[in-house]
Amino acid sequence: SAELRASCATPTTPNEEMNGAGNLMDFLDEPFPDVGTYEDFHTIDWLREKSRDTDRHRKITSKSKESMWELIKSLLDAWSGWVVMLLIGLLSGTLAGVIDLAVDWMTDLKEGVCLSAFWYSHEQCCWTSNETTFDDRDKCPQWQTWAELMTGHAEGGGAYVLNYFLYVLWALLFSFLAVSLVRVFAPYACGSGIPEIKTILSGFIIRGYLGKWTLLIKTVTLVLAVSSGLSLGKEGPLVHVACCCGNLFCSLFSKYSKNEGKRREVLSAAAAAGVSVAFGAPIGGVLFSLEEVSYYFPLKTLWRSFFAALVAAFTLRAINPFGNSRLVLFYVEYHTPWYMAELVPFILLGVFGGLWGTLFIRANIAWCRRRKTTQLGKYPVLEVIAVTAITAVLAFPNPYTRRSTSELISELFNDCGALESSQLCDYVNNPNMSRPVDDIPDRPAGPGVYNALWQLALALVFKIVITIFTFGMKIPSGLFIPSMAVGAIAGRIVGIAVEQMAYHHHDWIIFKNWCRPGADCVTPGLYAMVGAAACLGGVTRMTVSLVVIMFELTGGLEYIVPLMAAAVTSKWVADAFGKEGIYESHIQLNGYPYLDVRDEFTHRTLATDVMRPRRNDPPLAVLTQDSTTVEDAEALIKDTDYSGFPVVVSRESERLIGFVQRRDLTLAIKTARQKQDGVVSSSMVYFTEDAQQLPASDPQPLKLRRILNLSPFTVTDHTPMETVVDIFRKLGLRQCLVTRSGRLLGIITKKDVLRHMAQMMNQDPESIMFN
Amino acid sequence: SAELRASCATPTTPNEEMNGAGNLMDFLDEPFPDVGTYEDFHTIDWLREKSRDTDRHRKITSKSKESMWELIKSLLDAWSGWVVMLLIGLLSGTLAGVIDLAVDWMTDLKEGVCLSAFWYSHEQCCWTSNETTFDDRDKCPQWQTWAELMTGHAEGGGAYVLNYFLYVLWALLFSFLAVSLVRVFAPYACGSGIPEIKTILSGFIIRGYLGKWTLLIKTVTLVLAVSSGLSLGKEGPLVHVACCCGNLFCSLFSKYSKNEGKRREVLSAAAAAGVSVAFGAPIGGVLFSLEEVSYYFPLKTLWRSFFAALVAAFTLRAINPFGNSRLVLFYVEYHTPWYMAELVPFILLGVFGGLWGTLFIRANIAWCRRRKTTQLGKYPVLEVIAVTAITAVLAFPNPYTRRSTSELISELFNDCGALESSQLCDYVNNPNMSRPVDDIPDRPAGPGVYNALWQLALALVFKIVITIFTFGMKIPSGLFIPSMAVGAIAGRIVGIAVEQMAYHHHDWIIFKNWCRPGADCVTPGLYAMVGAAACLGGVTRMTVSLVVIMFELTGGLEYIVPLMAAAVTSKWVADAFGKEGIYESHIQLNGYPYLDVRDEFTHRTLATDVMRPRRNDPPLAVLTQDSTTVEDAEALIKDTDYSGFPVVVSRESERLIGFVQRRDLTLAIKTARQKQDGVVSSSMVYFTEDAQQLPASDPQPLKLRRILNLSPFTVTDHTPMETVVDIFRKLGLRQCLVTRSGRLLGIITKKDVLRHMAQMMNQDPESIMFN
Repeated sequence: SAELRASCATPTTPNEEMNGAGNLMDFLDEPFPDVGTYEDFHTIDWLREKSRDTDRHRKITSKSKESMWELIKSLLDAWSGWVVMLLIGLLSGTLAGVIDLAVDWMTDLKEGVCLSAFWYSHEQCCWTSNETTFDDRDKCPQWQTWAELMTGHAEGGGAYVLNYFLYVLWALLFSFLAVSLVRVFAPYACGSGIPEIKTILSGFIIRGYLGKWTLLIKTVTLVLAVSSGLSLGKEGPLVHVACCCGNLFCSLFSKYSKNEGKRREVLSAAAAAGVSVAFGAPIGGVLFSLEEVSYYFPLKTLWRSFFAALVAAFTLRAINPFGNSRLVLFYVEYHTPWYMAELVPFILLGVFGGLWGTLFIRANIAWCRRRKTTQLGKYPVLEVIAVTAITAVLAFPNPYTRRSTSELISELFNDCGALESSQLCDYVNNPNMSRPVDDIPDRPAGPGVYNALWQLALALVFKIVITIFTFGMKIPSGLFIPSMAVGAIAGRIVGIAVEQMAYHHHDWIIFKNWCRPGADCVTPGLYAMVGAAACLGGVTRMTVSLVVIMFELTGGLEYIVPLMAAAVTSKWVADAFGKEGIYESHIQLNGYPYLDVRDEFTHRTLATDVMRPRRNDPPLAVLTQDSTTVEDAEALIKDTDYSGFPVVVSRESERLIGFVQRRDLTLAIKTARQKQDGVVSSSMVYFTEDAQQLPASDPQPLKLRRILNLSPFTVTDHTPMETVVDIFRKLGLRQCLVTRSGRLLGIITKKDVLRHMAQMMNQDPESIMFN
Repeated sequence: SAELRASCATPTTPNEEMNGAGNLMDFLDEPFPDVGTYEDFHTIDWLREKSRDTDRHRKITSKSKESMWELIKSLLDAWSGWVVMLLIGLLSGTLAGVIDLAVDWMTDLKEGVCLSAFWYSHEQCCWTSNETTFDDRDKCPQWQTWAELMTGHAEGGGAYVLNYFLYVLWALLFSFLAVSLVRVFAPYACGSGIPEIKTILSGFIIRGYLGKWTLLIKTVTLVLAVSSGLSLGKEGPLVHVACCCGNLFCSLFSKYSKNEGKRREVLSAAAAAGVSVAFGAPIGGVLFSLEEVSYYFPLKTLWRSFFAALVAAFTLRAINPFGNSRLVLFYVEYHTPWYMAELVPFILLGVFGGLWGTLFIRANIAWCRRRKTTQLGKYPVLEVIAVTAITAVLAFPNPYTRRSTSELISELFNDCGALESSQLCDYVNNPNMSRPVDDIPDRPAGPGVYNALWQLALALVFKIVITIFTFGMKIPSGLFIPSMAVGAIAGRIVGIAVEQMAYHHHDWIIFKNWCRPGADCVTPGLYAMVGAAACLGGVTRMTVSLVVIMFELTGGLEYIVPLMAAAVTSKWVADAFGKEGIYESHIQLNGYPYLDVRDEFTHRTLATDVMRPRRNDPPLAVLTQDSTTVEDAEALIKDTDYSGFPVVVSRESERLIGFVQRRDLTLAIKTARQKQDGVVSSSMVYFTEDAQQLPASDPQPLKLRRILNLSPFTVTDHTPMETVVDIFRKLGLRQCLVTRSGRLLGIITKKDVLRHMAQMMNQDPESIMFN
């Protein structure tokens, strides 16, 4: 299991890394291993968890009739799900708000400080300024750059160099702090966390991945990482943070803390809350959890997720970190509809998004593989420092990369209003024309716009390259925002190009119908939005949730068709080069046992081709129901490392009785040897209901029917593998026994299924095109 | 299966009713029954359908390497899913547009006619009128009431009586036409169709339910039924119509027409398109299909549903039946936010919605049961005529019930603007105050408002009572609109009450903080919206999709919290009285074999308690692999009516080999007797791979391994029933064999599971409270 470690946590010694490894000893305190927990890096048994929950529920219901107090307890139990949702919403909303505020302040700290109150960000500092244009307001006297503060000169070469130097220094400080904290306190806090959360939700155990320590360190280092100006976002990590909150509150209720299946329902809802606060998009968050993250998503969870997502969104709004009482991150208001002809550039942006997605996934996976396999992985701190230095040095000179990425996206999405003073809005105005506040007609671009175009093109290349190296480093890093930034830059460039073409050539046939002179027909901001959706879609392969998030993000139901056209194109283009999104690729890179619901298995193999023992293997390790001694059982445990053993009537008939977990068997024998008198090595182990009458001279038998699973899952050897895969997927099995006409033949585990699927996939790579 | 008939189709002779019964003979033309279809009123085998589709897909993929033509064919096959979605979107959008236009015209026809062009509705007729207020514009000279046209007098007692009479007459004519068409041509066109579609999507076969004939008749009669002024809506039937479109287009592609599993994926998407056009809510439509209608909803379907829903919505917008180029049915724009204190009335509305839902479901089901079991069911035409007469006679005098229900809802949702001239906006204006267009402060209610309140209260009682009797009659009838109307009326009344209270008592502590004099603090329209959501939620138990539909319907993301508060309360209140929504209740009433994914099975029974044969029954009817004669098999088919038989090694060992479908066995023997020489009654039937060498004197054996399912699903007798239920639900099984240590013990079919669940539910009704 040493290979199954969280993506960006490089292997040192396993036990040091698993900061939750202490839990491993917990179960020994439990009365009997029967209701045991799972071992780290093992898969849970969904059916067993569900059945355990039903037992618990049944017990509470029957008790509730006994007394008033039990009735109240049962009612509390029934409502605990909603309470957990409320708590998750409140905490993750609060954390997101705090993170937003801290990032705002620390990002600005790289450039200067507010004299009236050092804890104000640039915007808050100049809040009370009376200037009308945004540009003038930004230059309020209370806010001073470092050069201004130190030398008294705000302008000139010296000031520029000093500011530059301090910008890089702060960035290095932040990122060094971030990577050190992650290394020392919580290795699991690195990366985006979504691949691991997907794996956990599919039923895998990674202890400590959602622990309190991870929660704390991830929150702090996320602020540091984002503030350092690296090309990363806070969205993925926020999902991880929200899931940690979910896990934290699960421990308050035994209903969730003692049942890995129920716990995962809560975590699904927490993931929705995470996206909800990341974008202010509650519905998009629920759909994201449904489409992208969750494995088992019953309708009850849908409703609860929605509640958690809403509570989280409204908590965030109450904190109001953006100071505009809007829920959404990038609120835009466009004044013109889109036209059918514009679908052509939108689809082109979709193609770009798909290509970027493919390029990014391939390059990033190649780089991460190199990090895993070469010396590079040994020096994570150095790597982060180096990438930060390069990022900061290259980012400072270009105004579009110097500021935070979300500010950049916000500006690119914006339509040029009358009060806008940015370079991007430097159009040549018609002096005869009065300036209405909205609905400004298309104008020729001024020198500022051309200047901005160059800088944006450079920023595009820079972002594309640096993001590949940034994602996967040993710090918290999301890639929603960098992907969206790449798309928004490309989109805005295309948008301005179309706009200028329409202005200068409005007699061209394609523009004739909808773009008369003096009309406002092209909105470059919309192109940026479409480009952002396309690039995000190419990287993550989200579909409905992407479109819903984008329209919640920007508040425009009207633009759902352009967004959808770009998202569909981008997905198709990217899928043509490889079915897997970035999260699935990272899951594969790290070798997690994840059975993707979307991979369709279409090969003509049978259960008999996959089951073990293979043709030349030794026979299957089985126990017999009444002819095994304690010694035999102990030898079997010692000689093999299987996680369970089938129990048969006798070795001759090979008729299956049940299945016993290795863990249960080991503990039962150990307990019996310690506590039960007369149980010695030659004692018989009985799995039958009634032990035969034995001569008094024989040692006392060990009765183990209690730990025997009497309803093991079986398929026949002729069952097509596609059915077996379907069963594993839908029922969340760990293993399945193979029989032929009532005789036990072999066993198929989840790992066998995954191995077989990978083999078949490599044999026939063409088949992936036709889904 | 005679009891399993579509809800509102009363039993006459089964074959007459199933208008698609002709299809029953289709399969005989197929080469071999192996890839057979299913019989009517039977359940499909999801695993087999999936496996058949994989085979087909594999064949196409391997062929595609042979020639260019095959490659193109395989690409066309891969894209056919999207083509079907596009076609469904286009057709269902068009049909919805046509229905809207026709309903508009025919509803107005009850009151009068447009002289300039008789095919204009009232609104279209007065389009060009120059009057400013809505009220005056409605009285344009081109539009004449029937009395005006016939007698020349628009006012006066005589005219009123004449108009009244003609209103009732037209209503009776429309509803008579509707019920006659349904009776004669397509009995399946009645009702809302959603219970049946849910059942079909869960894997049941109801032939002709989604046929062309049903499509045509349902479209026409829907227009008639809605225009007749009955208390019913078009939303449910539109889902049925869209599903018929989906079924129609499935027949174009063998991928979908020959595979019942794939067909159901298309139908799920079609249901989304139906809701999308019913409300102009594409996202809500997808969520409705996911939450309320669909059974098996893979992610691929999610994405395609979204596409179909969007195409449908934009087709509808292109047709523009409401003449306002809005997608949404009830677009509203409120100018004031809501306040925390208002949550109290919102939650009260939620309680009202829950109570109404409970009342409606109980009363409606009781009435429908009475219809099914008494003489009443024999006279569907008379019933419709009677209800229409009562509705029309009672509705005409009250202006709020006379108009169409969607117009009523629209008015109730509306905020009172300055140009509004309706009774509901008859407030006493402050003469000193200039009238701004928006943001009118709270004012005291005028006599019109008080008058309207009385009329609304009467309309509320009328709607509540009449809807109970209307839903389930033998005409197309949806209940979204009537439910929303009940809620909207109640909500508006509460809204006006709160508004007046706030105006007259703005010194009360609850109003003090947010309602200063001269402020616009209460929006009665919002209360109507919240009430509508609460009532709809109480009846259908929709959750996320309800909130999303409501906010798409009205275009306001801001009001998601009030809507949600009301929806949650309404669901909780209604669930306290009974878990089932109206659709599930109707499914139960009609006895469809529907295994609800939401019912949790929490009883401590085992497979052995449910399987047949029961303790004192004759032994299980089985075939042996090599010792059954043709005669034996025929006798077994004749003596039993099981839909399949297990095949065992021998009667002594009882070890299971496989399972053979009754239908396949019957056809195979029949075909063999006709076409294969030497197969006589005493021929042996072999299910083994190699038949033993027989003496030449023996008759030729019949080899049937081809029709044997070698991977039947088995569970052990100790498997808890909750696991069995889970397996049936998730894998969509028809039956499951029960074994103990390799020996066949019995069989559990889907109907056994349903029967057992119903039994356990009745034993312990309290358990439903704790989910």
